[in-house]
Amino acid sequence: MEDDRDTLRILVATDCHLGYMEKDEIRRFDSFEAFEEICSLAKQKEVDFVLLGGDLFHENKPSRSTLVKTIEILRRYCLNDLPVKFQVVSDQTVNFPNRFGHVNYEDPHFNVGLPVFTIHGNHDDPAGVDNLSAIDILSACNLVNYFGKMDLGGSGVGQIAVHPVLVKKGTTTVALYGLGNIRDERLNRMFQTPHSVQWMRPESQEGLSVSDWFNILVLHQNRIKTNPKSAINEHFLPRFLDFVVWGHEHECLIDPQEVPGMGFHITQPGSSVATSLIDGEAKPKHVLLLEIKGNQYRPNKIPLMTVRPFEYAEVVLKDEADVDPNDQASVLEHLDKIVRNLIEKSSQPTASRSEAKLPLVRIKVDYSGFSTINPQRFGQKYVGKVANPQDILIFSKAAKKRQTTTGENIDESEKLRPEELNQQTIEALVAENNLKMEILPVDDLDIALHDFVSKDDKTAFYACLQRNLDETRKKLNSEAEKLKIEEEDIIVKVGECMQERVKEISLRSKGDTGLASSTQNLVKCCYSQ
Amino acid sequence: MEDDRDTLRILVATDCHLGYMEKDEIRRFDSFEAFEEICSLAKQKEVDFVLLGGDLFHENKPSRSTLVKTIEILRRYCLNDLPVKFQVVSDQTVNFPNRFGHVNYEDPHFNVGLPVFTIHGNHDDPAGVDNLSAIDILSACNLVNYFGKMDLGGSGVGQIAVHPVLVKKGTTTVALYGLGNIRDERLNRMFQTPHSVQWMRPESQEGLSVSDWFNILVLHQNRIKTNPKSAINEHFLPRFLDFVVWGHEHECLIDPQEVPGMGFHITQPGSSVATSLIDGEAKPKHVLLLEIKGNQYRPNKIPLMTVRPFEYAEVVLKDEADVDPNDQASVLEHLDKIVRNLIEKSSQPTASRSEAKLPLVRIKVDYSGFSTINPQRFGQKYVGKVANPQDILIFSKAAKKRQTTTGENIDESEKLRPEELNQQTIEALVAENNLKMEILPVDDLDIALHDFVSKDDKTAFYACLQRNLDETRKKLNSEAEKLKIEEEDIIVKVGECMQERVKEISLRSKGDTGLASSTQNLVKCCYSQ
Repeated sequence: MEDDRDTLRILVATDCHLGYMEKDEIRRFDSFEAFEEICSLAKQKEVDFVLLGGDLFHENKPSRSTLVKTIEILRRYCLNDLPVKFQVVSDQTVNFPNRFGHVNYEDPHFNVGLPVFTIHGNHDDPAGVDNLSAIDILSACNLVNYFGKMDLGGSGVGQIAVHPVLVKKGTTTVALYGLGNIRDERLNRMFQTPHSVQWMRPESQEGLSVSDWFNILVLHQNRIKTNPKSAINEHFLPRFLDFVVWGHEHECLIDPQEVPGMGFHITQPGSSVATSLIDGEAKPKHVLLLEIKGNQYRPNKIPLMTVRPFEYAEVVLKDEADVDPNDQASVLEHLDKIVRNLIEKSSQPTASRSEAKLPLVRIKVDYSGFSTINPQRFGQKYVGKVANPQDILIFSKAAKKRQTTTGENIDESEKLRPEELNQQTIEALVAENNLKMEILPVDDLDIALHDFVSKDDKTAFYACLQRNLDETRKKLNSEAEKLKIEEEDIIVKVGECMQERVKEISLRSKGDTGLASSTQNLVKCCYSQ
Repeated sequence: MEDDRDTLRILVATDCHLGYMEKDEIRRFDSFEAFEEICSLAKQKEVDFVLLGGDLFHENKPSRSTLVKTIEILRRYCLNDLPVKFQVVSDQTVNFPNRFGHVNYEDPHFNVGLPVFTIHGNHDDPAGVDNLSAIDILSACNLVNYFGKMDLGGSGVGQIAVHPVLVKKGTTTVALYGLGNIRDERLNRMFQTPHSVQWMRPESQEGLSVSDWFNILVLHQNRIKTNPKSAINEHFLPRFLDFVVWGHEHECLIDPQEVPGMGFHITQPGSSVATSLIDGEAKPKHVLLLEIKGNQYRPNKIPLMTVRPFEYAEVVLKDEADVDPNDQASVLEHLDKIVRNLIEKSSQPTASRSEAKLPLVRIKVDYSGFSTINPQRFGQKYVGKVANPQDILIFSKAAKKRQTTTGENIDESEKLRPEELNQQTIEALVAENNLKMEILPVDDLDIALHDFVSKDDKTAFYACLQRNLDETRKKLNSEAEKLKIEEEDIIVKVGECMQERVKEISLRSKGDTGLASSTQNLVKCCYSQ
């Protein structure tokens, strides 16, 4: 399948999170460098267009600096004299409902040589009275083609119609369906409500029947089913699809996987910048060059070379021979060895890693039977050697069920030691475990959501965390004064206090705000990805 | 002076304040409509370019909606197939120091037919580590040519070099000097420091001597000298200038005025949208079509037709025959008559006023010897008849010097009745009078400035006002409890409390932050214009 007049060539990437860590001295340019690499690969591979799966921006309201940098990159790579060799034959005013209502390369006043098509993610989703996303700014500038923004309507579950962008190149015809991020719970309900999601398949025309189209869907939703309500089941998707680009999940699973019984494959490109230091993000990052001819396609994965190296390890202290619970020095020495090994590993030139950048290093330490170590202090000696000295270590306990006084089972791995509760660790824990419900009462999160949305309060979630942690600490202290409790018990106590807080708050605010179900997704959106 | 190949035709406007009142149901589109009219005039008059004098945006961080609307308007008017008939012959990388470094119409990938040149104002001035302004976003999009951004340097008074944009059309050569807003106090000091401001006049070249250039300066500073330190004296400007475009002042004084002994004229176009309901803003709004041929120019003033009608009146209650201090009904009736007259006046079609829009109406009421009226309640019956029912009335007292207990002269017109202290009236009063120093202690304002700048706290100034007013009210109440004081005396007391607050605070914080002198300008910037 050569590049000929009938082969449509698409560079697929997602979750570029432009502006991520823009205030970090070391990592501030990471997201931009990866995005520029993606654009430059598109140019080098002479693709017909770039397809992005959402979360182009990390912040819903990107900073001035991020906006300017993004515009500069798009302008440098997308505007040129190269001919665009495909046509968009669908109703462009429906596909691109901005003030101009056409695909960007057809605007006579711009020289667009590399079109970019994108949906929004959960980070750069539309908001406000005008329902505008940060992507709309780029669309107003004619630098991207923003599609898949749905009007969710008011009452009930709502109804959406997904109108594909119909792309023709020679004899190849592709129907590109876009579905910008919708709350998973909402979209789940819609998928389970008849006629709520309408797939507007192309009508037969000019000798083309509906089955002649190669059908691609790009969406931006949770895919991993920790809680089935807050993730989208692949089996909800229509069987007529041929290929699905799954955004939002940051782990790179670029090789298309077949969904049994559904007749389509899914590619999950993953993010181009690691936004949480978990195992999945440590895998080499790739983008996909997708070549389509007729009903056949060929996926070519391309490694990203500019991505900052990230090495991840897990260690269970009690399984290690050379460490002694009563000798902290032995623990420190052991962990130091691991860090040094990871740093060395990161500097080995491999196909997918850049050599010049300081690596990210993360060790998840199961410290059962051991004391914890202050991660900041531990990291001091790696300043200048790793990109994240402040949070190399993250502590966890082995999952083992324990009976609490309220008769509930508490999973020990989900417990926190109060001294560890700094923002960094909270974020990491919320991301890695399922701690949400115990740390953050639903109603508090709903209020934070409300503040965040209506009051433009960027700190709402952090304040919510802070408030709840303070309350918990306070309770813990007063409990500790009353009783003489052992350290081990404190862990259990924290759990109980959290439970109490949840009950307290749910008693206080009885009315269901209708937002409660969004909590789990919310935390994920705001802290992990 | 016809439009020929040697005549440069410039449409001059300023202070468009895009996004002003964007959340007001009635006035939300005012700023955009006026700006669109300006662009459409530029198109209709077939000018060579548009020159803006700063404050294109009202907010330093314009909302997404404002950004999108602005980009849409610029894209629709500036991108077209019309030929650009002048050349920029100066070093464009110096004039337009963005990533691209050239005048926008020379970019081969954009069809710019109507170039816009702009400096920044005090509202849309650069900020942050990257020293970026909202104008930089438009510049990155290639929609405007942003010039006059100075690097103020670190130590001492600083040094700036003003490099003109050298424009050539046929035999006409114009040197366009731009000076984006700098704090008046700072610029004042610079003007008084030798070699601090360098005017980089064009070198003789190709048979052109330095005197062959027509020299225009566009700046954005306070011009009215309530306090000479916080305004720029026209006599500080260099005598080689031929023409000055003065931004920032909202009153339309479009006809060029000669500055005696300086050899240049100044045009003050004024804002295209009224942002404070003061006398100066009630004058008809205009823009200037400036035609230059050789060393001759012709100014043509053009009225703006879309601007919302604004009628202003002043009344001194004690001078009115038909009102009685003991009969509030007579006062209400009298004011109602004035409002109705103003509404009627506003609906008379005149050259410069649009007919369809609800008018803005403002009456400044000198209520000496009378009680005040609640402005909100008064305005209720004008809902649907005026655009600003909530703040038609503003109360003042005749200036009459009074001896206070501290021996200072207090100008009575500058006193407030505590019940009037809502945000609306504070803003109006701060704008119209010189209440600043008495209401707002310098140090508090400096802190607010710091919060506003470094912490991105938009509410800093409002919080500062609120805090001080609360303190004042509290003091007043405790004083009132101790002493039996008459209403008239409360006015005096407010003044004393304010003075006390100022003293208290200046004692508390002894170190001069170096920002103190900026106070007066600051209040003006943030609330009036």
